[in-house]
Amino acid sequence: MKRYDEMTKEELQAELKGLEEKYKEYQGMNLSLDMSRGKPCREQLDLSMGMMDALNSKVDLSCEDGTDCRNYGLLDGIPEAKVLLGDMMENNPQNIIIYGNSSLNVMYDTVARAMTHGIMGHTPWCKLDKVKFLCPVPGYDRHFAITEYFGIEMIPVPMHEDGPEMDLVEKLVAEDKAIKGIWCVPKYSNPQGYSYSDDTVRRMARLKPAANDFRIFWDNAYGIHHLYDDKQDYLVEILAECKKAGNPDMVYKFASTSKITFPGSGIACLATSLNNLEDIKKQLKNQTIGHDKVNQLRHVRFFKDIHGMTEHMKKHADVIRPKFEAVEEILEEQLGGLGVGEWTKPNGGYFISFDAMEGCAKEIVSLAKKAGVKMTEAAATWPYHNDPHDSNIRIAPTFPPIDDLKMATRLFTLCVKIASAQKLLAEA
Amino acid sequence: MKRYDEMTKEELQAELKGLEEKYKEYQGMNLSLDMSRGKPCREQLDLSMGMMDALNSKVDLSCEDGTDCRNYGLLDGIPEAKVLLGDMMENNPQNIIIYGNSSLNVMYDTVARAMTHGIMGHTPWCKLDKVKFLCPVPGYDRHFAITEYFGIEMIPVPMHEDGPEMDLVEKLVAEDKAIKGIWCVPKYSNPQGYSYSDDTVRRMARLKPAANDFRIFWDNAYGIHHLYDDKQDYLVEILAECKKAGNPDMVYKFASTSKITFPGSGIACLATSLNNLEDIKKQLKNQTIGHDKVNQLRHVRFFKDIHGMTEHMKKHADVIRPKFEAVEEILEEQLGGLGVGEWTKPNGGYFISFDAMEGCAKEIVSLAKKAGVKMTEAAATWPYHNDPHDSNIRIAPTFPPIDDLKMATRLFTLCVKIASAQKLLAEA
Repeated sequence: MKRYDEMTKEELQAELKGLEEKYKEYQGMNLSLDMSRGKPCREQLDLSMGMMDALNSKVDLSCEDGTDCRNYGLLDGIPEAKVLLGDMMENNPQNIIIYGNSSLNVMYDTVARAMTHGIMGHTPWCKLDKVKFLCPVPGYDRHFAITEYFGIEMIPVPMHEDGPEMDLVEKLVAEDKAIKGIWCVPKYSNPQGYSYSDDTVRRMARLKPAANDFRIFWDNAYGIHHLYDDKQDYLVEILAECKKAGNPDMVYKFASTSKITFPGSGIACLATSLNNLEDIKKQLKNQTIGHDKVNQLRHVRFFKDIHGMTEHMKKHADVIRPKFEAVEEILEEQLGGLGVGEWTKPNGGYFISFDAMEGCAKEIVSLAKKAGVKMTEAAATWPYHNDPHDSNIRIAPTFPPIDDLKMATRLFTLCVKIASAQKLLAEA
Repeated sequence: MKRYDEMTKEELQAELKGLEEKYKEYQGMNLSLDMSRGKPCREQLDLSMGMMDALNSKVDLSCEDGTDCRNYGLLDGIPEAKVLLGDMMENNPQNIIIYGNSSLNVMYDTVARAMTHGIMGHTPWCKLDKVKFLCPVPGYDRHFAITEYFGIEMIPVPMHEDGPEMDLVEKLVAEDKAIKGIWCVPKYSNPQGYSYSDDTVRRMARLKPAANDFRIFWDNAYGIHHLYDDKQDYLVEILAECKKAGNPDMVYKFASTSKITFPGSGIACLATSLNNLEDIKKQLKNQTIGHDKVNQLRHVRFFKDIHGMTEHMKKHADVIRPKFEAVEEILEEQLGGLGVGEWTKPNGGYFISFDAMEGCAKEIVSLAKKAGVKMTEAAATWPYHNDPHDSNIRIAPTFPPIDDLKMATRLFTLCVKIASAQKLLAEA
């Protein structure tokens, strides 16, 4: 098939007429499908049902150090959970705090603490005229929502296949002491599924920020969330690299088991330097007596060790890999060679990122919605919901059953074609 | 036995000599006992072990409205948990948010949100020159730690048997618009075990604060934590009362199941007006996708309803009532009539409050510690750890096994007598 931008006006008009007829057929089907959020599907959740049997009324709920997990105590988590999540994070258990059920909550609290109390003795951010964060784009909408909520100015930085544009990142953080942080999803990034190259990680660890309280917010959300056994991305470990570079305190690393066991009923963690941990615990002890140790124990008893978790993740991959492949296949089959969009083919994570022709994303999402398919809101992947190109759309293939997903993706491609043809005709 | 302050110098010296000999005996016993924190004991925790069987891999983990509790969703909690904790709080489920594992965390976050974003459109507290809280004393050290951490000035207000000194509370909040809140443990207060009278609650609901964003922080920590079947304190419900008084938005009410099921692995909640809820959810949606719904479901399946919870609390009472009675008996037997201290005899809650002769509390706690019994730090019950009378000591009878508790209490009374005799001799 011809590229749309090489078609004559008449050819495009004929094409659009055919597309609109098909679209009407979809509208008549009363679809109600959801590709909007990175939610595991039922089959994935079923994989962790054994965790519900990991504890029962007959077992001892004491952890390794003898603490009764049913009672108050252990502000920073039970030792065996630190080992398990330390192995998951590739960090020393000593550098870890186990939190509650949500790493997003940990990130929010980390920003909130910096706002009201500052980082390691530095001026609280709320006392400063201006605080800025670098935001690799496209990125994760909930990261941007946190910084927006706290009135932090967000500066978009382009993401490439090997990570954020480091020349720009290096320049900006060195020049502007109002820049206090950068949001990173370094592995199988949200939404592109890109993983930072070794060079990117090393340069990140060697940043020379003007602000002494600059921190890298390293959201290791998809650290072990591979889609393939034979194609896995590997990253240089950022805490170790920062330490080597003489910047031991420059990174907060976040993760959780939300997409390993149950979203909202997993356990979250933070890994960082001992200096940062000390700083954090001064606050944490005022906020809580401790997190849910019984749930920490439940996770450890279920997985036993990192090998158990790794094997578990292969089962997740077996469930969702066919969904990613189905989406990619339909995108290629329906849109390949038309010049109407580009998309990523990640080796892990939860998303495929689609870049439509400039100015088409909102229209595509709107068309899909009108035909009963909910996509992530266009521009959600940009700070302030402002995608200057109106181009990026996040596709979340995991949640719908595969037949629904195929149907939704076909409709999506139809909407892409309609919006693209309309745009070219309007410009013709 | 004679009151100490009616003894001659010689009598007191003889008494002290005898006390010191007994103290040396205790020191030789190498005790290591802990009466410092309000922790449930093992037998209490065992009461909730059935909750570990409430869910297993064979049961459906969907809640009433069909939501799969294993996945993201329901920011403010599952419907049946709102009903259960609504019944526990005596509030409409519509007025409730179910949170994570700690009501302290909810209180902290409530203050933190007011600091950075203000309450219902009012100026964020961090932008004000001065923010003050009223603190009924003696009170809960972790409340005071939160306000101290945020630099909020704490003003002590005397607690009486029927609640805080309301003449003073009414006067202060009406005069000073920097006063933004008051910490209350209205039922079986920490540490005295006092419950607010109906009149106190009604006056609290009718406060006329100078600050429009003044809020009552109503920590309903011991709402159903009775020690007796036949002697139970009842309170007028504060949300309803505020509504009647035309102050519907003036109160945040907190509670959790920490001392019902497992401390740190329970569920927490907040009850407040719909206006406040709307204000809170604007923030909450940035902080988390939702709390642990599986644990909410586990609690509901275990208790079924408020009747189940009430019956459960009777079992708690059966375990800890003898401990309270043992402490009270030993205090009476050892200190009755000596004029060296007064103590409370609560109908519920977790503490007995002891008021020593002025200037003796620190010495008593120090003496107990040197003989191997850990008490709550003296002055912990006052803001800034500053008890101007050096008099109040919190006794936490629940955690130690009863024989240990008796031993520790006897040693405590010995320390009270020594410190009191020393004081009187020094003044003689």
